Amino acid sequence: MANYTQVFKGTAFTSKSSKDILILKEYLFCINEDGMIDKVLSPNDDDYQEMLTAHEGKAHFHQLAPGQYFLPGFVDTHVHAPQWAQSGTALDIPLYDWLNTYTFPIESKFSDLTFAKEVYDDLVSTLLANGTTTSLYFATVHKEASLLLAEICAEKGQRGLVGKVVMDDPEQNPPFYRDADTKTALAETEEFILAVKALAKSTKQGVYPVVTPRFIPSCTDAALKGLGELVAKYDTHVQSHCSESDWEHHHVQDRFQKNDAFALNDFGLLGDKSVMAHCNFLNDDDAHLFAKTGTAIAHCPISNAYFANSVIPISHLHAKGIDVGLGSDLSGGFSPSLFDNARQAVMSSRMLEDGVNPALSAEQRGLPSSRITINEAFYFATAGGGESLSLPIGRLEENYAWDIQIIDSRVSSAKLPIFNPDEDLNDVFQKIMYLARPENIREVWVQGEKVHSRKL
Amino acid sequence: MANYTQVFKGTAFTSKSSKDILILKEYLFCINEDGMIDKVLSPNDDDYQEMLTAHEGKAHFHQLAPGQYFLPGFVDTHVHAPQWAQSGTALDIPLYDWLNTYTFPIESKFSDLTFAKEVYDDLVSTLLANGTTTSLYFATVHKEASLLLAEICAEKGQRGLVGKVVMDDPEQNPPFYRDADTKTALAETEEFILAVKALAKSTKQGVYPVVTPRFIPSCTDAALKGLGELVAKYDTHVQSHCSESDWEHHHVQDRFQKNDAFALNDFGLLGDKSVMAHCNFLNDDDAHLFAKTGTAIAHCPISNAYFANSVIPISHLHAKGIDVGLGSDLSGGFSPSLFDNARQAVMSSRMLEDGVNPALSAEQRGLPSSRITINEAFYFATAGGGESLSLPIGRLEENYAWDIQIIDSRVSSAKLPIFNPDEDLNDVFQKIMYLARPENIREVWVQGEKVHSRKL
Ligand SMILES: [Zn+2]
Ligand SMILES: [Zn+2]
Repeated sequence: MANYTQVFKGTAFTSKSSKDILILKEYLFCINEDGMIDKVLSPNDDDYQEMLTAHEGKAHFHQLAPGQYFLPGFVDTHVHAPQWAQSGTALDIPLYDWLNTYTFPIESKFSDLTFAKEVYDDLVSTLLANGTTTSLYFATVHKEASLLLAEICAEKGQRGLVGKVVMDDPEQNPPFYRDADTKTALAETEEFILAVKALAKSTKQGVYPVVTPRFIPSCTDAALKGLGELVAKYDTHVQSHCSESDWEHHHVQDRFQKNDAFALNDFGLLGDKSVMAHCNFLNDDDAHLFAKTGTAIAHCPISNAYFANSVIPISHLHAKGIDVGLGSDLSGGFSPSLFDNARQAVMSSRMLEDGVNPALSAEQRGLPSSRITINEAFYFATAGGGESLSLPIGRLEENYAWDIQIIDSRVSSAKLPIFNPDEDLNDVFQKIMYLARPENIREVWVQGEKVHSRKL
Repeated sequence: MANYTQVFKGTAFTSKSSKDILILKEYLFCINEDGMIDKVLSPNDDDYQEMLTAHEGKAHFHQLAPGQYFLPGFVDTHVHAPQWAQSGTALDIPLYDWLNTYTFPIESKFSDLTFAKEVYDDLVSTLLANGTTTSLYFATVHKEASLLLAEICAEKGQRGLVGKVVMDDPEQNPPFYRDADTKTALAETEEFILAVKALAKSTKQGVYPVVTPRFIPSCTDAALKGLGELVAKYDTHVQSHCSESDWEHHHVQDRFQKNDAFALNDFGLLGDKSVMAHCNFLNDDDAHLFAKTGTAIAHCPISNAYFANSVIPISHLHAKGIDVGLGSDLSGGFSPSLFDNARQAVMSSRMLEDGVNPALSAEQRGLPSSRITINEAFYFATAGGGESLSLPIGRLEENYAWDIQIIDSRVSSAKLPIFNPDEDLNDVFQKIMYLARPENIREVWVQGEKVHSRKL
């Protein structure tokens, strides 16, 4: 029998497909020293009892209490780390003003590493407490502070994919907050990539550098071209914003006579490790290009309500074969919780399907077949995030990382409304997805290591 | 100097108007023995220092710690109490099926008083823990269980307005869950009114009987007429559902050749103490009738995303002079929190304004001027709820009840992202409204009595 580092016993929920969940009742999960799920055993398996007997009662054996369940940790595919300091504020103004009046001034403060450490420490701890085991981060233009964010992820045990933001166009960015020039932007990005790759060598759960042009409007052609070359040279992840709002969409069309997707692709920025935030205004050709290149969409439903002028037809786009992850988009979205975002993803999809204006007839009002279920929102928050990042995360299956959250439905201060001791497990799952709060997240593990726990 | 029962000192947020908040920095709130705010003093008032000296340090003097703030308690104007047992489930099916397949079966179980007590105890405690100091409840058709809900509110200190539901039409309701017949429905409603009025005599914060036809489709003409007569006889509150979904809207038009609003008014069910849930499909004439009669709208933004086939143009309706409160609509809405509903009210209004379908041009997509701000959502959750119920609640002003929640922004497990010790109080308010969770609600008081507290 293999020598497992940890063995967990309990009931788990994971995605069987984008539409269906799998309920693993009283399964055993055997974790190896790399923090990977080496073996998953059902009570019906022949060797279940033998495995149980071998490990039960030992220090490395963990059995869930009644009312507790395993969920995969969440994968947040779009977070602006510095904006945590302004979350929840200034959501009543348009994107362009929001960036220039609020967001760029606060991001510029991250040249101060003391301030950066205070905010990033708090953010990473908060995300872990919300069940987010992997985050794809935009940091700021500052190389040192961006590296500090990667170091904090490494130290706190979160799987962090971090980008030093590039915004080099002096015409488009304020003098107090932009790269010094194109050459510096590219040189610092390369230094950042190398530094994070060095850090990764000593980080069990992984940290990854991400090439991060803020979005096309903030970058020169030379910067976009240079970043594409760095992606090719180092085989990194890529992130940016794509076809988010009416304003942004038209800006790119005016500049390149094509949509974002094709412009980004021309610069070598679309690929299997690319994740583009928002993407509300992708047309069919753009969507085909995403599917063909393996580029994923970071769907940010809360943020989109404020800044995207529309609801993304995520069900239709996912059906075209595009990978989809869920993103909090702090602080365009106010909530650090992917539970909140999963709920909003369902609600927004319902509003797209039924339409919004009651003065129109039902036939004219909506876009048919747009709804997603809570199972699909869960999929986007977990397995879909893993696919978007091309990492073995987001599923409770063999050869996936042991990234999990333990949900306690019976915490006295946040008891879920379950009154039937034999409640159907599908209903338990739905109550967790709709009603769980950070209080219900008792433990969080990443790559086989406990990174958060909450006392009663 | 008056003999106050309690004196509170701290910074409070309350509505100045529907669009603006008032920030009362380090004010004194002096509460009399009836639990009413007798005096509010600003540090600039002449007698502030004298009042402070007279009370400071005594047992009845309460000073907020740094990072703590007073908000008015929330007024939830639409809750189906029995549906708490199924919150978060079965949200993927149409209203008609949802009622018949899920909701009516679970409501029918409330003939069992043991089950009713378990669910209602948990619900009232949960709502208090979420900052809801007043609730307008639909119970079930069962007179005894409905009275039990009123008794539980009385005992736990919540201000409860409770309705025994009437659904007497044998053609429209299942045999296992409806009133025995019209005569019984009316007789039991009258007995229920008298019993709750008797209970109110010994209940400091008030309990109120509410005449509650479920909605027009479930009631006979005779029942609607009889209920209108009971409203007139006892001057009670009234609640029902009005123009909620395409299906419900068309049902009433087919039956009465008029919209819900005029049909309800014909039966004597619209008035200053009437609150109608949803109301998405009110036309201009309906809206005028609401304003003229003083009928309020219970706006249920989360529930509407699932069952109302549209977003209510709440900004336009409020501008016509209609009172608006916020409703959780458990369990058509999954969340017991009016914080969650306030956030959704803002987001839904943004989606109505901008529209949802990105394939349409910006001009064709939305309904201009539909957005509300977080200040307005806060107003609907507090002062607007008080106006809807015609009760002196929802504001931190003299001659209003001392119904409050104490928000702690520094609870270690749920710290709000405030990094500046001198953060602008408008930003603090917005961070509370967008990010506070039940963990941040340290104490809840109703009518001068502490009804909930949470240890660190
Ligand atoms: Zn973003
Ligand atoms: Zn309702």
